[in-house]
Amino acid sequence: MSELTGTAGPHVFVDSLDELVVADDDLHHLRKSLRLRPGDALTASDGQGSWVACLLGTDSALTAVGERVYQPMRPTPATVAFSLVKGSKPELAIQKLTELGVDQIVVLDAERSVVRWDDAKLAANLERWGRITREASMQSHRVRLPRIEALVPAGEWLMRPDVHAAQFGGRAIAADVHSIAIGPEGGWSPAEAAANETRTVTLGSTVLRTETAAIAAATLLCAVPR
Amino acid sequence: MSELTGTAGPHVFVDSLDELVVADDDLHHLRKSLRLRPGDALTASDGQGSWVACLLGTDSALTAVGERVYQPMRPTPATVAFSLVKGSKPELAIQKLTELGVDQIVVLDAERSVVRWDDAKLAANLERWGRITREASMQSHRVRLPRIEALVPAGEWLMRPDVHAAQFGGRAIAADVHSIAIGPEGGWSPAEAAANETRTVTLGSTVLRTETAAIAAATLLCAVPR
Repeated sequence: MSELTGTAGPHVFVDSLDELVVADDDLHHLRKSLRLRPGDALTASDGQGSWVACLLGTDSALTAVGERVYQPMRPTPATVAFSLVKGSKPELAIQKLTELGVDQIVVLDAERSVVRWDDAKLAANLERWGRITREASMQSHRVRLPRIEALVPAGEWLMRPDVHAAQFGGRAIAADVHSIAIGPEGGWSPAEAAANETRTVTLGSTVLRTETAAIAAATLLCAVPR
Repeated sequence: MSELTGTAGPHVFVDSLDELVVADDDLHHLRKSLRLRPGDALTASDGQGSWVACLLGTDSALTAVGERVYQPMRPTPATVAFSLVKGSKPELAIQKLTELGVDQIVVLDAERSVVRWDDAKLAANLERWGRITREASMQSHRVRLPRIEALVPAGEWLMRPDVHAAQFGGRAIAADVHSIAIGPEGGWSPAEAAANETRTVTLGSTVLRTETAAIAAATLLCAVPR
């Protein structure tokens, strides 16, 4: 029972902690990929902040073997926004941001983004990103799925008073920063930069690709005691 | 000339700042991928800490247009060690660690690593990693290439008094930590953990994949003012 800490062993999402029934796909994953057998220990979460230690049974029903634990939300959500980039980079960023514990992920439509998506492509990617965040949330033992918003015009997002733009020469990230926005490879446009010029933060002294900057921002928001 | 800051515009490595001759592959990259033309600005570094602002010419010779700048090394190298993992994950980690500014990258052979390489496979990967670090160093405007060591037995590495093992319940990463080691997906073996038990550090409260933990460690060593 020593592994039932909520941070070790397999972790699965269920629709309700009152029912504790594992979906077919997840059951397949637990049995085939993770090689769990009846009687093996795992944790189940409702994706709304609660989890409970369980044992796998012979069918899709789990048996709770502990008290439900509720993990409070952060007082202010950790938010990382990044500009749409090419290829599989948005997927990589979304997977890693989820693992690191970001509460809200925003994909920005920046003036200098070199990628433009129509509604069909956006819809297909949102579905795919939903799967990625769910898998990464199970893998990283999250008890809440991150929220994803896309595509938000960068100029509008940067005007929000809680949003800090990543920029060379910005200030160090202090404990009052909870929301960081990352520009495209070509940088912010003058209008976008002007919308945020008083709230820039630095991510260090090297030049980072957009997805690396997003992962670094997530680390600084989620993995530093604050 | 406003872009010649060492952190914007194209950046290339040359064998010597006295010669300023670009290798064929790099010249092709500058002309074809980055679409530079004669007279365009870039920076050139010797990979040993010095760089100079230049202009591209009509052949492989660059013309210096500024003073040489020497960037001192960190007093203590930022070091991230991670256990060998499957597939392209080591490449991803090495690329991102290079971008973030890690000085020394160590790939560990841990007792619970599920990947075992023979000498031929290691040699092929070392060559590949060398290319990846060079490209990522150009992209991120580094003036020194990171050193890569592989495969180092994890038990030996963890015994070093300057190495801190990433572990749940470890202490927060303070300014005296310069070297972090990341275990394989199955965690450290009891012998490995025992070799380092007094020096564990935490990377936050979620369960991270090995490559994500390595990137988070690099961020905490390189992007946090210390």
